[in-house]
Amino acid sequence: MNLAKPTHTGYFFGLSVGDLARRLRAGSLTSVELTQAALDSIERLNPALNAFVAVDAEVSLAQARKADELFAQGLDLGPLHGIPVAIKDNIDTFDHVTTYGSAHFEGFRPTQDALCVQRLREGGAVIVGKTLTHEFAYGPTGDRSLQGAARNPWDARCITGGSSAGSAAAVASGMVPLALGTDTGGSIRIPAALCGAVGFKPSFAAVPLDGVFPLSSSLDHVGPIANHVDDARVVFEVIAARTCAPATLRRPLRVGWIEPGTFGPLDADVQGQVYQAAQQLFGDALEQTGELEPLVAQLKDTLLTLQRAEAYDVHAERMQTAPQLFEQEVRERLELSREVRGWQYIRAQAGQARLKAAMARLFERYDFLVSASVPITATPVDAREVQVGEQCIDVRAAVLSYTSAWNLTGLPAISLPAGQVRGMPVGLQVIGAAGADDQLLQLLAQRYVRT
Amino acid sequence: MNLAKPTHTGYFFGLSVGDLARRLRAGSLTSVELTQAALDSIERLNPALNAFVAVDAEVSLAQARKADELFAQGLDLGPLHGIPVAIKDNIDTFDHVTTYGSAHFEGFRPTQDALCVQRLREGGAVIVGKTLTHEFAYGPTGDRSLQGAARNPWDARCITGGSSAGSAAAVASGMVPLALGTDTGGSIRIPAALCGAVGFKPSFAAVPLDGVFPLSSSLDHVGPIANHVDDARVVFEVIAARTCAPATLRRPLRVGWIEPGTFGPLDADVQGQVYQAAQQLFGDALEQTGELEPLVAQLKDTLLTLQRAEAYDVHAERMQTAPQLFEQEVRERLELSREVRGWQYIRAQAGQARLKAAMARLFERYDFLVSASVPITATPVDAREVQVGEQCIDVRAAVLSYTSAWNLTGLPAISLPAGQVRGMPVGLQVIGAAGADDQLLQLLAQRYVRT
Repeated sequence: MNLAKPTHTGYFFGLSVGDLARRLRAGSLTSVELTQAALDSIERLNPALNAFVAVDAEVSLAQARKADELFAQGLDLGPLHGIPVAIKDNIDTFDHVTTYGSAHFEGFRPTQDALCVQRLREGGAVIVGKTLTHEFAYGPTGDRSLQGAARNPWDARCITGGSSAGSAAAVASGMVPLALGTDTGGSIRIPAALCGAVGFKPSFAAVPLDGVFPLSSSLDHVGPIANHVDDARVVFEVIAARTCAPATLRRPLRVGWIEPGTFGPLDADVQGQVYQAAQQLFGDALEQTGELEPLVAQLKDTLLTLQRAEAYDVHAERMQTAPQLFEQEVRERLELSREVRGWQYIRAQAGQARLKAAMARLFERYDFLVSASVPITATPVDAREVQVGEQCIDVRAAVLSYTSAWNLTGLPAISLPAGQVRGMPVGLQVIGAAGADDQLLQLLAQRYVRT
Repeated sequence: MNLAKPTHTGYFFGLSVGDLARRLRAGSLTSVELTQAALDSIERLNPALNAFVAVDAEVSLAQARKADELFAQGLDLGPLHGIPVAIKDNIDTFDHVTTYGSAHFEGFRPTQDALCVQRLREGGAVIVGKTLTHEFAYGPTGDRSLQGAARNPWDARCITGGSSAGSAAAVASGMVPLALGTDTGGSIRIPAALCGAVGFKPSFAAVPLDGVFPLSSSLDHVGPIANHVDDARVVFEVIAARTCAPATLRRPLRVGWIEPGTFGPLDADVQGQVYQAAQQLFGDALEQTGELEPLVAQLKDTLLTLQRAEAYDVHAERMQTAPQLFEQEVRERLELSREVRGWQYIRAQAGQARLKAAMARLFERYDFLVSASVPITATPVDAREVQVGEQCIDVRAAVLSYTSAWNLTGLPAISLPAGQVRGMPVGLQVIGAAGADDQLLQLLAQRYVRT
């Protein structure tokens, strides 16, 4: 079985934002039509996928009508004008309930938009609803939240990955062409890879986090999930409030293929499929690199220490006053997180600085590093172990294993759909130098052809 | 009994560096003579005071001869040229054993000078020896170290205060005219106050800490102990590698007298004596301020959390492999320090930023804040409780109580001799706005007359 497309597809499946934008401006369709198409797709697919946790048709259609009116007046707010966008439920929106995936915030309505949402609105985007997040974004499977599990559009028995679970499912299935996610250890790239979407984590602090519920302040990122690299670029430009510089190469491209196994067990079929995609994309520029291996233990320990201490800082009062409101698995992680010591956190801060410097040295040699985004395909919802070759490994550790280093070091990283393995999507991760978001997005938009 | 001077006095007692410098240039004395006078004073007084823990006459006299040669050649390295200076034993010197006050470093000889020492040497200063520090500078009494207790020149049964115990005793008794100390919670100002010297803690990071053994990286400062404000200024200019701007007042001076009791119990006689000194110094500019009171609990908790976590970071390996080498009281503090949690440290970092902002607002109104430096006079060596009025209080907490807030907030603060109470010296603390070191030193050099 090698499915060419998900079992669940909506209006926007495979469509590019550039095409939609051209058609809006040509008058061959309206924002209200696009928004209605999103709402119809959500109505049809969401019962199976549980991607959206809040949708308000009236609110969205009013925004769409406003977008159409502006077009009619000759006003053009830019490439997202009139385009439906979904927002992960840990990002504040004043006009939709925002629960952060948690019973602690059931029915909560923020008083204002997150800054990234405000920038989307200023760019004319139509917010069609909120997508499921793993509770407080603290989990990479996307199957534990106030609203239950999100479901993979390629096989609804399986996880989407997380924590930006609903955003990836919504885009990959074609309910919407674009969504925002957040990424603290892989939370954009993991579900993008497991659902077959493009997921981009910008450089640390390239997009402001105001109004995004924190998980770990030194690792949190917000970024787009899309069908195409160029669509991700468009969203990035809007939420980062700047225009990407054109891609230039000072020398022949050099791309380091991170040796399989560097960050942990890697399914052999996933490896084969992703390597093939990397070769198609980079050809002779691709070379093996084993240089990361000596850093891996330090990368993982340092990230874990920072993430745990910072996550507990965010939730200490809730853990004291209402621990029972946390989903059990999240509560258990927080109980562990409470135990990190101050001196360990200080060392992790110093370690993070050292590892960033080590990466800067590595990127003097390479333009990009590439690997599988996730070493396995999507596992069944609620499963916590998976067989990889001869080994039985922890699902949560596995799905995070190839992505989290780039949160610790703050480097821009993107997951690109790289075909299927046993009928389920896999992702190719491309990592750029610090601050080289533009280079990464522009070069990949030129080279990458979705298969 | 109201002693006008210490029971133990050496050559430099009361002398000003400016006078010495003039006499060196006039040829009425030489650096070798000054250095020999220091060595003789040390030889005579140190058995009683235990201020110096390492002296090397040959090494010092060689430096002095070199200084005299340069003068003879017409070369003048600046105001410290030829002047004997003592260095606290937690500051690296390549030519003297440097123990950090600890059995862990018995006989240790650093390979290079701390940057502040290097700057002193470049300014022509003669390093005459190392002064006793409380073990690893982790204690404000100065009576627990590899080399035992330093003794107060006014009464050798009493503590000097710490942790820059030997530096204060050496300067106050006149063994040397100048010394370097370090200050993480009051470690320059406390012994300066208890021994009757001037002790200046510059703004955070105004003087680099390279080569200074760390106690708590967000609170550590290095600065001078001297007999006169202007002498402290001279040392500050050399170790900060810049020239102080002349003092100017944009408006009538406003000085806030921190209400007695704000930071904890204050001996009534100390209060009376110090307030009188403040009135002499500032006259009508002095006004009561109660505005700090609401911040005190937060200031103390935040500092304690940062200091503990950072101190344990420094000593974690030693605590694991050789805990028995720590002095017992220091080891007990480190055992407590190990328990600070990461999330508490994160909150303390955020709290520090908020408190700095609160101080900045307060200093929009005041030029200086003033208080007693230490709320009591020197207690007997090894005593850990002291009677203040009706209360029996902890000596270590008491001596730190009025100084540590200015480490947390990084503000420049100086302790000035303010007369005696029951025959022992007391100090007046003057605190300036962030970065206003120059203003503080220059204005006080103009106004302050030592009594």
